[in-house]
Amino acid sequence: MAQTTPNHTQTVSGWAARDSSGKITPYVFKRRENGDDDVTIEILYCGMCHTDIHHAKNDWGITMYPLVPGHEITGIITKVGANVTKFKEGDKVGVGCLAATCLECEFCKESQENYCDKVQFTYNGIFWDGSITYGGYSKMLVADQRYVVHVPESLPMDAAAPLLCAGITVYSPMKDGGLLEKDSVAKRVGVIGLGGLGHVAVKFAKAFGHHVTVISTSPSKEQEARDRLGADDFVLSTQPKAMLAKKRTLDFIVDTVSAKHSLGPFLELLKVSGTLVVVGAPDKPMDLPSFPLIFGKRMVKGSLIGSMKETQEMLELCGKHNITCDIEVVQTDEINEALDRLAKNDVKYRFVIDIAGSPNGHHHKL
Amino acid sequence: MAQTTPNHTQTVSGWAARDSSGKITPYVFKRRENGDDDVTIEILYCGMCHTDIHHAKNDWGITMYPLVPGHEITGIITKVGANVTKFKEGDKVGVGCLAATCLECEFCKESQENYCDKVQFTYNGIFWDGSITYGGYSKMLVADQRYVVHVPESLPMDAAAPLLCAGITVYSPMKDGGLLEKDSVAKRVGVIGLGGLGHVAVKFAKAFGHHVTVISTSPSKEQEARDRLGADDFVLSTQPKAMLAKKRTLDFIVDTVSAKHSLGPFLELLKVSGTLVVVGAPDKPMDLPSFPLIFGKRMVKGSLIGSMKETQEMLELCGKHNITCDIEVVQTDEINEALDRLAKNDVKYRFVIDIAGSPNGHHHKL
Repeated sequence: MAQTTPNHTQTVSGWAARDSSGKITPYVFKRRENGDDDVTIEILYCGMCHTDIHHAKNDWGITMYPLVPGHEITGIITKVGANVTKFKEGDKVGVGCLAATCLECEFCKESQENYCDKVQFTYNGIFWDGSITYGGYSKMLVADQRYVVHVPESLPMDAAAPLLCAGITVYSPMKDGGLLEKDSVAKRVGVIGLGGLGHVAVKFAKAFGHHVTVISTSPSKEQEARDRLGADDFVLSTQPKAMLAKKRTLDFIVDTVSAKHSLGPFLELLKVSGTLVVVGAPDKPMDLPSFPLIFGKRMVKGSLIGSMKETQEMLELCGKHNITCDIEVVQTDEINEALDRLAKNDVKYRFVIDIAGSPNGHHHKL
Repeated sequence: MAQTTPNHTQTVSGWAARDSSGKITPYVFKRRENGDDDVTIEILYCGMCHTDIHHAKNDWGITMYPLVPGHEITGIITKVGANVTKFKEGDKVGVGCLAATCLECEFCKESQENYCDKVQFTYNGIFWDGSITYGGYSKMLVADQRYVVHVPESLPMDAAAPLLCAGITVYSPMKDGGLLEKDSVAKRVGVIGLGGLGHVAVKFAKAFGHHVTVISTSPSKEQEARDRLGADDFVLSTQPKAMLAKKRTLDFIVDTVSAKHSLGPFLELLKVSGTLVVVGAPDKPMDLPSFPLIFGKRMVKGSLIGSMKETQEMLELCGKHNITCDIEVVQTDEINEALDRLAKNDVKYRFVIDIAGSPNGHHHKL
């Protein structure tokens, strides 16, 4: 169905998964010429998202191999197309999950293109020209300017990279929930899972004066949650009594867990009419017991990354509030080890690949 | 723990389940004297709710036997307490699911007492005096006036009875969703399950000019849904292709299914930011796949019956719009047969027991 088209003439070094083992190896491939609406980006850093693992291992059954993952990209513009006015060579920019949308539907027209029914992603998607998209585990990217954002000067390019997915994924529903306005009333916010998404959610909530409870399965995360991230409270979800003691105490919960789980015990933590937003994407259905939903008039909402407008807005806000991700930088020859550790949540809190600082993949000794 | 207290001196004939077989047999028991805030009601009719089956068979593991079910009660006031000003002897009234709440919490104070954390129900609950509550499968009821509503003159007492639970259960979330205002914009509303709750939901939606799609597993229900209830569309949820054809078409879905099911296929029917309200109470957790939730920014909400204020308001509205339930009246010696048929959804659309017209239970030949 999808294949590289004739104008894909630019050779790029990257790193790809070849099969459901999920093992990443160097991969040289072609990208399209820089079109009139395109910008070419020299990739500096690429964050490692849990989704990369799901796709690399074909957990969702939709992977097209070879797969070049990566949708938390920061870099420098090296070329701009004739129609590009928003960017110039040398600009610091970011690219997230979106590669193409239909441009015509109500969502595309109303700056909600992330909900376009024809949305195509930065990797494992089908671009307008019919080619498969390859992501940020690579040295260079050609992107339509519509899906590129400016990275404010004040943000470091490595720690800003995960904002392009992890950041916007929690920012958008928290903004939707009225938590991130200048005059937001202080709420009691819960964050389930202290990983890439969770730790940014804590930072956003604290930046706007909310009371934050981290809900985790790892006792080892309590001290960090409190001391480093400023969380006000910490509950072990493995302890039913501790959970019960917090019944009906929270207004809003951001659920970042990417493994199958029951929503029941977490819903019980919500006040009446409280909201739990699902931003992880477990590959198996979650359990939703009716009683905690019904008896508390509670709400479970989904949210998918965010729009380009929101993404730019979030980056400005991060620049202003000095919000970045806590990261561990790895080299390209450490990708597999990092993915293994990520699968075990053994990272504080996001791996970022130093793409520009690592040797070229195809010259690299394995 | 709970037991009948000394002032429970009034002998009442009723019908009760004795064990998890769920079989209902005549049962004579005691009710309290009519207190200062109480009214005594001669029960005329009692609707049969799916919840009655769950409780009779102890599906939720919380049944206290003997269980006198019934929370869709209409009748005539025969006595009022010294503090009762809202009612007088001879008034036509209704009693729904609520028997007692704390009276002190924010929900009790703001006419949302159905979400009071200490809510006690009309049967299988614990009243303020420590006694177990017995429901409407009985000849007489003593109820605190706070949990009693007037039935408008224009409504027939038999067909009005199921409004007290089935009616209010769909009315409250539909009102919350902005569907039942005088000037409500016409929306596309889906109703899953055409039973006691579902058929009233269709009537409410049609009364306010919405486009209604009935979603069912029974092909036999299509004609009735369209011709008798005025539904605009009908989809068989067992046919994936038919379901797919309706993808992203509905604004709001009322899910009345009381058996375990996956919410995934139904969520796909919703537009972006659409809402599915769960009002059935499956005894096992529902499956909630993350993708249809996330990709459509959709919302799953719970809703528990409604407040007393809403219940009165709904009855007035039903009186005005001539909305009643489509019922099949049964005698008290037909309760078990009716419950069996109800379990198979073999009823159009609610059984109502003719309590006053049936012979006394304890004199009744089985």
